[in-house]
Amino acid sequence: MRVMGIDPGLRQLGWGVIDVDGPRIRHVANGLCRSEGTDPLSVRLLALYRQLKAVLAEHAPTAAAVEQTFVNKDAVGTLKLGQARGVALLVPAEAGLTVGEYLPNAVKKAVVGVGHADKRQIQHMVKLQLPGVRIAGPDAADALAIALCHAHHLQSAGHLSAALLRAGG
Amino acid sequence: MRVMGIDPGLRQLGWGVIDVDGPRIRHVANGLCRSEGTDPLSVRLLALYRQLKAVLAEHAPTAAAVEQTFVNKDAVGTLKLGQARGVALLVPAEAGLTVGEYLPNAVKKAVVGVGHADKRQIQHMVKLQLPGVRIAGPDAADALAIALCHAHHLQSAGHLSAALLRAGG
Repeated sequence: MRVMGIDPGLRQLGWGVIDVDGPRIRHVANGLCRSEGTDPLSVRLLALYRQLKAVLAEHAPTAAAVEQTFVNKDAVGTLKLGQARGVALLVPAEAGLTVGEYLPNAVKKAVVGVGHADKRQIQHMVKLQLPGVRIAGPDAADALAIALCHAHHLQSAGHLSAALLRAGG
Repeated sequence: MRVMGIDPGLRQLGWGVIDVDGPRIRHVANGLCRSEGTDPLSVRLLALYRQLKAVLAEHAPTAAAVEQTFVNKDAVGTLKLGQARGVALLVPAEAGLTVGEYLPNAVKKAVVGVGHADKRQIQHMVKLQLPGVRIAGPDAADALAIALCHAHHLQSAGHLSAALLRAGG
């Protein structure tokens, strides 16, 4: 199973890809998609769309997850994030993937163990869980954390299905 | 010049296309793209993306505009709208069009003459300016209003360029 995590943002969108084989988790790649603040909004979204599409084409994940941020102090910021998030959800859906969504606290809890961790703690735990990883930036670390969270979630769901199958058989 | 207006929304996205030839404005088509509220968000965005892409392929507009709504009472609603708006901006950009953005008040002022008009007044003025039009719903009427606003804007810009050229020549 190859899992991609996406941390949406209009200026900078983080992505991270990991391979999951039972208990073994391996880092594949991580990076940032960027848009120019001076470009019109439609051009910025198209830039993010094309970069993210190229990342998916290159790394061919089989599952994806996006952070479910919806609280923001101002409506303008929330709308901007929403527009980038629309692209972040669309690209894996277009590639035929189901897209998981996790609240930031769920991601932190899955990766750090507590719901209220700062960026540094997340980066630290991502590095511990993916030895040797070189992280492109905080948004890419968040994206890897989302991928790890999704992997944990899918594995527990898998274990549950297996347990149910055993119970049923 | 063929202008497409888009009124973004996650449940229902309105679109309208008009032909503009100097002072002559003609209705081409209008309609709604819809997504199922019970589907995952990524599937809903993909549905809107594909429907809107098909509309662009069928009617081949040469210019597009999207309403610039960013104020909303709650952050959840703003984020939802933002995600749909991301798709609404992306599709014409992907088709190589520049995408105009207008605040709701600017659209109302261009079409009704005042910045504070209700949905009924907009629908009424759209029908007056596009004789014989059959409107698919309020969101499609808003989309046609956005197209009319963009047409007015492009024409004034055109007149201005022509005037400047004459002044320069």
